[in-house]
Amino acid sequence: MGCILVSETRDMFHRGRFLLVQPIRRGHRSGMDAMILASCVPEGFSGRLADLGSGAGAAGFAVLSRCPRAYVTLVEHSHFMLSFAKKTLSHPANSRFFSRVGLVEADVTLRGKARNQAGLADNSFDFVIMNPPFNDITGCITPDREKAKAHFMCSGLMDAWLRTATAIVRPGGGLGLIARPASLREILSAIEGRFGGIKIVYIYPRYSLAAIRIILFGIRASRADLKVMPPLVLHERKGSAFLPRADAINNGQLSLWDAY
Amino acid sequence: MGCILVSETRDMFHRGRFLLVQPIRRGHRSGMDAMILASCVPEGFSGRLADLGSGAGAAGFAVLSRCPRAYVTLVEHSHFMLSFAKKTLSHPANSRFFSRVGLVEADVTLRGKARNQAGLADNSFDFVIMNPPFNDITGCITPDREKAKAHFMCSGLMDAWLRTATAIVRPGGGLGLIARPASLREILSAIEGRFGGIKIVYIYPRYSLAAIRIILFGIRASRADLKVMPPLVLHERKGSAFLPRADAINNGQLSLWDAY
Repeated sequence: MGCILVSETRDMFHRGRFLLVQPIRRGHRSGMDAMILASCVPEGFSGRLADLGSGAGAAGFAVLSRCPRAYVTLVEHSHFMLSFAKKTLSHPANSRFFSRVGLVEADVTLRGKARNQAGLADNSFDFVIMNPPFNDITGCITPDREKAKAHFMCSGLMDAWLRTATAIVRPGGGLGLIARPASLREILSAIEGRFGGIKIVYIYPRYSLAAIRIILFGIRASRADLKVMPPLVLHERKGSAFLPRADAINNGQLSLWDAY
Repeated sequence: MGCILVSETRDMFHRGRFLLVQPIRRGHRSGMDAMILASCVPEGFSGRLADLGSGAGAAGFAVLSRCPRAYVTLVEHSHFMLSFAKKTLSHPANSRFFSRVGLVEADVTLRGKARNQAGLADNSFDFVIMNPPFNDITGCITPDREKAKAHFMCSGLMDAWLRTATAIVRPGGGLGLIARPASLREILSAIEGRFGGIKIVYIYPRYSLAAIRIILFGIRASRADLKVMPPLVLHERKGSAFLPRADAINNGQLSLWDAY
């Protein structure tokens, strides 16, 4: 067997309340997107949550850190990325989470029996969070005609991820998703008839700039109206400091739904 | 012939730069929605614009007031409401607009030849603005099962309005639409393949409250990505005073796209 040397970092989140082991170069590195995604789980959440496409597990661990009665299953296709989730889980700084985490190495787009056998049983979760691979998806909806086929495939990807979420979340359970604004139509189309009571939060770097992310929250089988909730603005008009609400959300001190 | 006594008001807009004659009780009364809708026409716009479902003409007159090279056709099904547009047009305070306004009494949902004969020729406008009757539409997407059929009919209404906009706007021409956030999915679905380069602006009464309106801008036959532009917030955290940007937009001093 060969030996691959991978450089890794240990990053603290939530003001030091948990630590994440991540690869330095290969694979997606987590940051604020994961923290904001985790913040869409309501305060006081209790139950089973699946982090679909968890990568090294940043969002899932952020939920564990803020919600002491949450049990989190990290679902990740990449053996490489999941190995970092394992390192994170076994790190002494995170020992209090150990009994509340499960790891599933599986492709989120698995269907039916294959999905069940991978450990994702129907109606077995109270909440699903996901950060679909949106670089692929938004790359598809450029005006480039040669990407038409890829566009179709990518829309299919969003649909496949939401199909899995729909299958594994119990009726009345929740969904939290982070994506780019350009994916709005694909998401609303794929979510129709599956999740309702949709709440959307747009994330703006500053008050005067276009939104860079969407958080979409939904309730399985709800038929309530869609609402667009107060915007989340990250920075003041000038400078790099976070606004107080963004800072509190980034550090696990507020959910996205807390009054402010 | 009988005689119906209708009480009317004369309201000043744009800090007195135009006057609108409106019925006191019957019919929709215009206000800030119409001013914000008109603000989505870019600064310096020159050409023919149709205000679909114009009512007494508030949005159309607001465009005339801010854009001196705009020619505006008010399209309204209600003879009653259009009679107020005529009074507005013939009022001495608005005399400078007279040569730039046309009135069309027609149902926006007319199709093909009937629409052309009503005065709405294909590809004949550079811009369309519309405020579809969203009370009907959002009333449909409540969880009430008995409204399922009405829901379908209402989604059809949004589609019909956008079908007319698509027919009468030249390729490269613009669309501006104001609606409630709950209509987001219906709008994006009805707009697909017709208008692209979508820019959405959400309107919040305050930073801490849910959005109450969407402005959606699009370009006929464009394939550019959807963007979510900076939010428009109307009021400070407390009090009823408008924030400076909202005040300037309400008074025709800024377009919705001007830097601020």
